Amino acid sequence: MSDGARVLDPVLKGKIMSAEEAAALIPSGINVGMSGFTGAGYPKAVPLALARRIAAAHERGEPFKIGVWTGASTAPELDGALAKVDGIEMRLPYQSDPTCRERINAGQMDYIDIHLSHVAQFVWFGFLGHLHVAVVEVAAVLEGGRLLPSTSVGNNKTWLDQADKIIIEVNRHPSLGLEGMHDVYYGTRLPPHRQPIPLTHPSDRIGTPYLECDPSKIIAIVETDQPDRNTVFTPPDENSRLIAGHIIEFLTHEVKKGRLPENLLPLQSGVGNVANAVFAGLKESPFENLTAYTEVLQDGMLDLVACGKLSFASATALSLSHEAAATFNAKIDDFRKKIVLRPQEISNHPEIIRRLGIIAMNGMIEADIYGNVNSTHIMGSSIMNGIGGSGDFARNAYLSFFMTPSQAKGGAISCIVPMVSHVDHTEHDVQVIVTEQGLADLRGLAPKQRAKLVIEKCAHPHFRPALEDYYRRALRESPGRHTPHLLDEALSWHSRYLKTGMM
Amino acid sequence: MSDGARVLDPVLKGKIMSAEEAAALIPSGINVGMSGFTGAGYPKAVPLALARRIAAAHERGEPFKIGVWTGASTAPELDGALAKVDGIEMRLPYQSDPTCRERINAGQMDYIDIHLSHVAQFVWFGFLGHLHVAVVEVAAVLEGGRLLPSTSVGNNKTWLDQADKIIIEVNRHPSLGLEGMHDVYYGTRLPPHRQPIPLTHPSDRIGTPYLECDPSKIIAIVETDQPDRNTVFTPPDENSRLIAGHIIEFLTHEVKKGRLPENLLPLQSGVGNVANAVFAGLKESPFENLTAYTEVLQDGMLDLVACGKLSFASATALSLSHEAAATFNAKIDDFRKKIVLRPQEISNHPEIIRRLGIIAMNGMIEADIYGNVNSTHIMGSSIMNGIGGSGDFARNAYLSFFMTPSQAKGGAISCIVPMVSHVDHTEHDVQVIVTEQGLADLRGLAPKQRAKLVIEKCAHPHFRPALEDYYRRALRESPGRHTPHLLDEALSWHSRYLKTGMM
Repeated sequence: MSDGARVLDPVLKGKIMSAEEAAALIPSGINVGMSGFTGAGYPKAVPLALARRIAAAHERGEPFKIGVWTGASTAPELDGALAKVDGIEMRLPYQSDPTCRERINAGQMDYIDIHLSHVAQFVWFGFLGHLHVAVVEVAAVLEGGRLLPSTSVGNNKTWLDQADKIIIEVNRHPSLGLEGMHDVYYGTRLPPHRQPIPLTHPSDRIGTPYLECDPSKIIAIVETDQPDRNTVFTPPDENSRLIAGHIIEFLTHEVKKGRLPENLLPLQSGVGNVANAVFAGLKESPFENLTAYTEVLQDGMLDLVACGKLSFASATALSLSHEAAATFNAKIDDFRKKIVLRPQEISNHPEIIRRLGIIAMNGMIEADIYGNVNSTHIMGSSIMNGIGGSGDFARNAYLSFFMTPSQAKGGAISCIVPMVSHVDHTEHDVQVIVTEQGLADLRGLAPKQRAKLVIEKCAHPHFRPALEDYYRRALRESPGRHTPHLLDEALSWHSRYLKTGMM
Repeated sequence: MSDGARVLDPVLKGKIMSAEEAAALIPSGINVGMSGFTGAGYPKAVPLALARRIAAAHERGEPFKIGVWTGASTAPELDGALAKVDGIEMRLPYQSDPTCRERINAGQMDYIDIHLSHVAQFVWFGFLGHLHVAVVEVAAVLEGGRLLPSTSVGNNKTWLDQADKIIIEVNRHPSLGLEGMHDVYYGTRLPPHRQPIPLTHPSDRIGTPYLECDPSKIIAIVETDQPDRNTVFTPPDENSRLIAGHIIEFLTHEVKKGRLPENLLPLQSGVGNVANAVFAGLKESPFENLTAYTEVLQDGMLDLVACGKLSFASATALSLSHEAAATFNAKIDDFRKKIVLRPQEISNHPEIIRRLGIIAMNGMIEADIYGNVNSTHIMGSSIMNGIGGSGDFARNAYLSFFMTPSQAKGGAISCIVPMVSHVDHTEHDVQVIVTEQGLADLRGLAPKQRAKLVIEKCAHPHFRPALEDYYRRALRESPGRHTPHLLDEALSWHSRYLKTGMM
């Protein structure tokens, strides 16, 4: 595999080595910035080799842990492997790996859950400490150290700029037809020298198709030939289809009322089954000439691009099933005209999201009757994944939806509760809540008006009477009646679940 | 008083009438957009006349209520008078009036607490319903309906643009020397037509010094001659001086570390005693050539402009004591070169705040050990004032502080609690917490690291052992150990206060 076919720079060819040799250049105690966003474009060999190196050190009784910074979630070969050998001291800014999650919730690994738009600038500001090494997957190393990005851009620009040393993984699996699909903006500055970001349409190209780096910082190049973690695409289930239906009906209504253009506004959506259902629904809808300005391009969105409904999509990562990836590669010359991949500081930038007027659709764990949303914590203390870009989008969107089935765990948990056990999106940031039961449009409503609507439209009938009872009693007995609450009971639903397995 | 001296348009002179006559043009059931921001530039006669009209209607047994939209807080002559006669159906986006607060917390008045940067655009989007009448104070009516703004700009541009009908109050009290101090940006558009806002320095002027309006919409002009509500300036108390000291020490440290320029970055600060103390502290500090990009210019900041420490200040309102207002008027030709007043959609715009890299300093009611901040609710159910611009600034700032004395009510309340009773700023948005006890720098820390620091640095020694005890037991018994909590106890401090008057 070590034929150097995708390393076009003659000097850098000399840096090609094995994953083991490269991993040996990463010492304990440092911060490592790795590529990867939603299981796309993460390094596939060095983290595994590093995990072996860490395991061996631990067997010898030597401590070995690193800080792992990424774009967003990665894959078992990165987060999973390093967490399994207890090799991560601090993880940021987002993860969704089962082993990581277990370690974090057992109190064995520290995790900082950061708005994705904040990460790059915090590193530039020096707020997160020093970045020692970058480990970045690319599709090719061009002459002079220019890099052809892989299936995600994420924070790679910042890792390459900020790290002392760079390890490149050149993956020969992604199509070279990716060349020209990326747009890496090099116009960011530190305050007080920042300028407006000149992007006014999802299709605008404001940067270069390549990542730049100082070739003298490259200490290793490792060749791989491996697809991204395959996201398994499951057809939308009944609840997802109902949620998608409510959203599309609502968007149709907003167009009729003149509050949205006929081709809507750029769409953003979180990952998962509901998001795919929304895009499946949009495919059947009368909407035309749609655009997307989002983080992750999933199967549903690719399908919408392929059929022409979506005229342009901007994202920072491609998170596709095996089948969708094959379609993508087969028609990459077409898709390159309709898809752009940007750094996540641009895909998630408040300035751009607000300017474009995004329609944001994000999943959640639970909402309370007053419209506060918990996106990250199970029963107030265990992390699920992280806030990701949901805050960047919800706060700055034109219109923002939070979606969840009304129940979880076969009806043991109500996803509409008196008070959420953790707040990620406050009452000031939540506009529309959607479950399979219905949609609550909270725009322009005061807390008590919201409560009535959320209970009526979104709660599962099984839990509705208990929510109505809580609200009625709170209205009577709460010391303040702006946001009526019974503090002794507000979190009792979660407590009850923890004690009895049933809310 | 009705001499029309400040109504230079001959046609509009004919619209001059009494406050009673103007108030008679406001029917029940409509939404009224009033000027006013932090007790500056609010209409002073029409709301009082309207309150009398409402009281009379109620005496006749007729219903009479309106929706009141403003820039931010106003004064007894507006919020107080209308709340007293039960004339407000729905209030937004911010208030700080005792009678309003009482009505809201008694469940008799609805209130929507909105990020100040969201208000104007939500009205343009049609999300808050129809705006029927604008009642806007100005310093003069110029030819053709151009208006010289008064001591605040707030949402006046949007009210004038969006309302069907306009009532102008021309106040002859503010100095005509205000002419040229305002900068009203007319470049906003609705998505998908928005462009970058071309502001890169607090002193940039990007609009016009006047408010424009369609003169045919003006149905009444009322003349007044009255100062703004006088903010009484009290010298900083001991706790405020300690908090200010911690902040200035921290800023000095950040400059030393190279994380801030020597003249810092543009300052934003909420209102009140602590804010004034910070500016008093800055006056004695070695910092020079400072700038401010904030909502409200208070005495402390004006003093800093006057002495040359602050080279430029951008705000949306002047909220001055009687003495400071006199200084301001006496030297207005100087101040006009160093102060600009903008619409609040620009003073609070995420795009600008993020670009400029603001240092944000805002008060709060309480913080919890994990860094969640409550800015609005007393004991989880009663509103205090509102979120105002604190969210706009905290989320998008370069560096953000939340400040409070560590105790309230003479030691009955700890302002550091296990879990806040309401969340306005989530763990993802809070960087630095400051009390008179000390400063907790939470940047780059995971939840458990934050908890230790907040308890150690910020809690009052009286409450510290109980917080440590809660945290220690949570660490042991919490089902998840990412954010350890004991849900049965998390809000018990607030419950105990409600039952016993003591946390």
